[in-house]
Amino acid sequence: MSNLAPRKAVRAMAPYSPPTDGRAGKLRLDFNENTVGSSPRVIEYLKQQLSCEGLSIYPEYAETKPAVAAFFGVGTDDFILTNGTDEAIQVLVNTYVDDEQEVIVLHPAYAMYRFYAEVAAAQVREISYRQADLGFPMEELLDALTPVTRAVLLANPNNPTGTGIGVAEIEQILKKAPGAAVLIDEAYYEFSGVTALPLLPRYPNLFVSRTFSKVYGMAALRIGCLFSQAQNVAYLHKAQSPYSVNMLAAIAVRAAIQDPDFVSSYVAEALAARDLLYSGFARLGIETFPSQANFILFRIGARSIEIRDKLREKGVLVRDRSYEIPGCIRVTAGTRAQAERFLKELENLL
Amino acid sequence: MSNLAPRKAVRAMAPYSPPTDGRAGKLRLDFNENTVGSSPRVIEYLKQQLSCEGLSIYPEYAETKPAVAAFFGVGTDDFILTNGTDEAIQVLVNTYVDDEQEVIVLHPAYAMYRFYAEVAAAQVREISYRQADLGFPMEELLDALTPVTRAVLLANPNNPTGTGIGVAEIEQILKKAPGAAVLIDEAYYEFSGVTALPLLPRYPNLFVSRTFSKVYGMAALRIGCLFSQAQNVAYLHKAQSPYSVNMLAAIAVRAAIQDPDFVSSYVAEALAARDLLYSGFARLGIETFPSQANFILFRIGARSIEIRDKLREKGVLVRDRSYEIPGCIRVTAGTRAQAERFLKELENLL
Repeated sequence: MSNLAPRKAVRAMAPYSPPTDGRAGKLRLDFNENTVGSSPRVIEYLKQQLSCEGLSIYPEYAETKPAVAAFFGVGTDDFILTNGTDEAIQVLVNTYVDDEQEVIVLHPAYAMYRFYAEVAAAQVREISYRQADLGFPMEELLDALTPVTRAVLLANPNNPTGTGIGVAEIEQILKKAPGAAVLIDEAYYEFSGVTALPLLPRYPNLFVSRTFSKVYGMAALRIGCLFSQAQNVAYLHKAQSPYSVNMLAAIAVRAAIQDPDFVSSYVAEALAARDLLYSGFARLGIETFPSQANFILFRIGARSIEIRDKLREKGVLVRDRSYEIPGCIRVTAGTRAQAERFLKELENLL
Repeated sequence: MSNLAPRKAVRAMAPYSPPTDGRAGKLRLDFNENTVGSSPRVIEYLKQQLSCEGLSIYPEYAETKPAVAAFFGVGTDDFILTNGTDEAIQVLVNTYVDDEQEVIVLHPAYAMYRFYAEVAAAQVREISYRQADLGFPMEELLDALTPVTRAVLLANPNNPTGTGIGVAEIEQILKKAPGAAVLIDEAYYEFSGVTALPLLPRYPNLFVSRTFSKVYGMAALRIGCLFSQAQNVAYLHKAQSPYSVNMLAAIAVRAAIQDPDFVSSYVAEALAARDLLYSGFARLGIETFPSQANFILFRIGARSIEIRDKLREKGVLVRDRSYEIPGCIRVTAGTRAQAERFLKELENLL
């Protein structure tokens, strides 16, 4: 018999649900990835850089960090590289939030905000999106921000709602919570064009995360950035493992940021596909929510899980969200051809 | 002015010291990596598997996990893949140790045990290796283990001392601390041949970590494993990010474990190089400590930092450890030719 008991915080957490496997080759409209893959230049560069010696050396970021800094227009001391956005969230929470302290998250939102707050045994306070239109609950959030708030974790635009706020709203939040670390997760920035990055010099409580997992098509590699003022970044560094970002990711990023045309043309295509999806949903009489990202949340009703499963049988993957938004499914906007294929399969099922 | 203050635990931590950059092409005897690089088969397999679509998909471990399980002779529910050993330590601490609870580490040891315990705001209790011979402080450790001990984090063999303990000693520790998570970090197992893995079915408080960063020559990729009984692994899973291990690492491991000859022939070479180093040190009248790993700690005296710097000028990298063991430097045993080159450069400096 073991006396070994996990922490109460861990026992209380929802059980781990493994990601779907075997997604390659299917029409992947379920994770908001780049549906055509990474830039071919990234693959080319990785193949060229791969070597037995290189693989055996602990990661070195001296070449990557200045390139990334220049790309984002910040200094090398103004951000950390992170093992995906997940590590950005974890390091931020570990740097600023003690046991039992308050972390504010929105609902529904990316599950990892709550996850890392719970691992840290924080007091998680959830503010719900407006039920009718999934609009941002600005007043409620501002009311919730008090001197005991230690962190606010939100995505802009938000996932899975697709809705976003403007820079003015972000400033309101920052001003109301000067003692809290405010994370604006901009995983879908390239599709919305709204960013809080230029606010960094003015708000010492602002943290902005970006990722190479979405539009850049590099989710497999796990790399992102967490930006803040240098004095904050020095503390983030202290709470981060020195080698958490693998070297192939650090190499790949150098190639990825040198191919801006790949990103801009994919964004244009995905936005066109999104328009196509909206038209299709309207034609089919399906309720949708306004999205600023590369996905659309639509309300299909009681058959949501059945429809997800039947689409999967046709090789089309979408994400059921009915457990948090009744009757809703999320679909990624990829290419126009992919949108048409999805709409055709959906229409056949209805 | 910002009211934003990091946690006391983070403020109290030692400042981050960045890893050395620009190590490629030098004689890397400073990080106990594989000094000839990874298996060429790993590079070949990675090049073959790299694709634009593959890069854009979130990591999937369904193919890797059964292969790794079979390789280690365990079930797929008996371990998690980790982002290097660092994540193994962090997930273990996050699963079992609450604020202010006691974690026992040894000194000197791998810095990340203390690091993650401090991030978790644990009470770190340090047991020192015997000063005279850097032998394992077995009695002191057993005395320190009490019902309030929540975790014991130790490496076997230990880094930087190189000294190790046997399975019988590990069992004594496990028996004395039934309520603590006992981590045996076996990063250097392949060189020592001593493993606690077969004890897993009998000790529900045992955790064993392995890494592909050392003998396998894949430090750049960040991948390791943390083994325990399945009921513990279920909790570890709950406290771990679902995508912390990147996909290229998960792919590379499949090739790495299919090339056992690469590992065994490198181990034989490194052990021969270690013998050569011991003979060289004896000839030069330099004190050494008995190592069960691919490195040797030697006492060079007051000039340790100067000697490290002068060796670096010659393109030979070693690790100064005088800040924790007076006058001592750690040198990796790579190939015999590398050992000879190091000894020649060292002799020239003395």
